[in-house]
Parts: sequence; C-alpha cells; structure tokens
Amino acid sequence: MDTLSTIYNHRTIRSYKTDAIPKNVLDNVLEAAIRTSTTGNMQVYSIIVTKDEDRKKELHKIHFGQGMILEAPVLLTFNADFNRFNKWCLQRDAEPGYDNFLSFFTASIDALIAAQNATLAAEAQGLGVCYLGTTTYQAQKLVDFFNLPDGVVPVTTLVIGYPKDIPALVDRLPAEAVVHYESYNNYTEEDIDRMYKDKEALEETKKLIEENDLETLAQIFTKNRYPKAMNVDFSKLFLDLIKKQGFMNQ
Amino acid sequence: MDTLSTIYNHRTIRSYKTDAIPKNVLDNVLEAAIRTSTTGNMQVYSIIVTKDEDRKKELHKIHFGQGMILEAPVLLTFNADFNRFNKWCLQRDAEPGYDNFLSFFTASIDALIAAQNATLAAEAQGLGVCYLGTTTYQAQKLVDFFNLPDGVVPVTTLVIGYPKDIPALVDRLPAEAVVHYESYNNYTEEDIDRMYKDKEALEETKKLIEENDLETLAQIFTKNRYPKAMNVDFSKLFLDLIKKQGFMNQ
Repeated sequence: MDTLSTIYNHRTIRSYKTDAIPKNVLDNVLEAAIRTSTTGNMQVYSIIVTKDEDRKKELHKIHFGQGMILEAPVLLTFNADFNRFNKWCLQRDAEPGYDNFLSFFTASIDALIAAQNATLAAEAQGLGVCYLGTTTYQAQKLVDFFNLPDGVVPVTTLVIGYPKDIPALVDRLPAEAVVHYESYNNYTEEDIDRMYKDKEALEETKKLIEENDLETLAQIFTKNRYPKAMNVDFSKLFLDLIKKQGFMNQ
Repeated sequence: MDTLSTIYNHRTIRSYKTDAIPKNVLDNVLEAAIRTSTTGNMQVYSIIVTKDEDRKKELHKIHFGQGMILEAPVLLTFNADFNRFNKWCLQRDAEPGYDNFLSFFTASIDALIAAQNATLAAEAQGLGVCYLGTTTYQAQKLVDFFNLPDGVVPVTTLVIGYPKDIPALVDRLPAEAVVHYESYNNYTEEDIDRMYKDKEALEETKKLIEENDLETLAQIFTKNRYPKAMNVDFSKLFLDLIKKQGFMNQ
C-alpha cells in the first residue's frame, strides 16, 4: 500500500479478530520501529512484545479492562529507555549523564516516533492498531509488571491485530485549527466557533451529548473523559515514577 | 512509494537543495500530520510552518546555527498545544483541567506521532527531513520567537526539503538490543558487548574516535555530544518552560 494512502486511511481499531500475526508480518512491524530516526542514533527506547495469553490478561487489568486487549494477539509497550545505553557507557569508560528530565524527554521522543512507524507498518500489512493512553496513567504498574530497571519508563502501548470491522474515518478539525503559517494565530472566539462548527454539528456529537446527559461536547471531555481530578492524580503518579526511574536526579 | 519501503529507506538529510516545495506537496505532508491518531481525538498539538527567509535565519540562530536550516525551504515546528482546546472548553461552559504534567505529556505524544507521519509523507514524495533535537533545548527561545501563549510548548522541529545527496543508510543495533519478548531482558555485560560489537567495528566509528581524540565511541556521547552538564542545564530550562506555559499548576 502506498505511504500516503496508508496514512490517510488510518482508523483506530477497537475490535479485533483473535487470529495470530504471522512472524514475518510482526518482524516487519518491529523492523519499521527500529529504522526510525533516533536522537544521535542512540536508540534510547525499547519495545516489549506481549503475546502470552496469561500476561495479556494481566495487561488487560492494568489498562482499565479495555476488552480489545483480550481479543488482539499482540501488545507492544514502548519505553523511553536509557538503561542499555547507560550500561554500554559504563562498560566503555564513559560516565553517562542521562539521569535528568531532558534525557527522559529525548528518550520519549525516540519511543513515540518509533511507535508511529510500527503503526504504519502494521496498517500497511492489513493490521489495525490502537494507542493506549492508559500507559502513562499506569506507568508504575507497568514498571512492576515488566520489572523495568532504572532508566526505563513506559510511554505508550499499541494493541495490534486483524480488525473485526473497519469503522468509518473519524472527523478532524479543519487544517487551520492545527497549522499556523509563520506566526502563531492565537484564535479569536469567532475562530474557535468556526473551527468546531462541523464537529459540533455531527449526528454522532449530538448523540454523545444526549448519552452523557450534558450540554456541550466540551463538557464530555472536562467532566467525563479527562476530568481535572484524574489528570492531577495521574500527573503526580507519572512524575513520581519518572523520578523513581532515575530521570530527575539533577 | 509503498509504506514499508518508505520506512526502511529513511535517511536523515543534512544537506538540501534550495528548491521550493510545491504547495500541493507540502499540503500532503500537513494533511498526513492531521490524520494522525490523537488522544481522544482532541488534536492537542499544533504545527508552525516557516518559509520566510528572514524568519528562517532567526530560527537558524536559535537552532545552534545548523547550516541545513538556511538551505532547506521549510521548517515545521511541532508543539504540544492545549491552547485551542482550552479556549473551546471555556466558550462551551466547560472547565478545562489540563494545566498539569500529564496533559503536557499527552499533548507531546500527539505532536510527536504527527511529526513522524509528516516525515513519512515527505519522504514518500521525494523530500528529505531532519529532526532538530535543539527544539527542547531552545524551547523558551522558540516560545518567544513565535509568541506562543499558555498551554503551548515546542517539542520537535522538522527541516524539510529536496536532498542534495542521499547518504548511505546508517547502522542500527541488532533487534535484540531494542525488542524484548514477554519479559524485559536486563542486559548482561556479554549482551552489551555482543550488541555493540558491529557498531564499534565500523570504519566510521574508528574515524570518529580518532577525530574526537577519545578512547571509545561512548565517550564521544558522554563527553562531546550529550555531556551531563549540558543535559542538566537544558533539563532545568525545559522544566521551567513547561511550568511557565501553565502545565505544572497542579
């Protein structure tokens, strides 16, 4: 499948067949991740492949019981990972200086763009994927589950498998909501109304508002999906973990 | 170009022709970014396109004077961006709760995977790209330059243009250095030696060690490229900026 078509046809898949992924197909996905640009070619990330059914059941619990995790044959957990690099430095008379926030963020960049390469390589081969946002919420539990050493923090997870159904493409805001030319256009009230008009007019949006018994789509995000109290709690847990994994020593 | 070939043929391009990028080609790149999965379809990122020569000269200074910035016709700065979303919430009787670290990281994920989609869409159309790691180092200066409001933090930049030359594919560590099956394999000394053997045996590596007048490749990273003092300084600046842009209120 050509690259632009793969990208433009992306759908998040939340319902999977239980069919296994052939080894060569999964190897292509992993190879795609490995070919990604990384900072200074340090490759400061890692990927954990979970296929074992019992372990998948444990991850299903950790990731808030999302049913697709039990259906799909493979989970890939992407970590910001300076552990290997630090060990290499220490074995080569070099003193690693990567126990700080910048290094955590650098390693996160490596991990995240590798995850997107894996996503597209999967989709190009007829697989579907879903990113799990619960990875950062539950990073401490994933560290415990995978027994991750210092210098390793999980940043995202991909569910991968053959889609049961292919849903319709989801809406996106018009390009002007995301793209700025030369200067940053700091939206007026009229800009915001115009940019969100189509999204708010969707039948699906009206149905969601009714189901949630709220007044606006924005309230579904602020009250139900990503409420402040939850974000504050998970911020604290995630920052504590980043510190615990040795990225805030300086 | 088919997706796997695009991914496997990625090279970082550091030397560009000054030829402009046709509008439809650049629009395809931006559309690819926009089609990326985002957390809850909130699209909490933004992209700033820089084509103006005078503004490119300013960015050239900010990004440590890397010459390719003057050659290439376009720079794309990717931001973690809750500003638009927050404004929308406030206009819709919803109280945004995104002034915390988790929300910053969520928005960074959106921005970074969008950047990788843009990268592949560029490469599929014959363009070359280079990620600028200096973006996080100089995030405060970029905020000043672009006059970025609260809720916006630059996380990466792509230089985009037609390559002057196509360099050879660069080496990668063997897959076992990055991929773990079921459990995390916490490398032994022998593992590290085996995984880095080929990289360390490259003629290019030997030349680099000689040029840097050091003893090991690892020392080039720890002493010259990414030394501790620099990482510590930029960690402080980046964390201060994340706070200043309103992501550490809770």
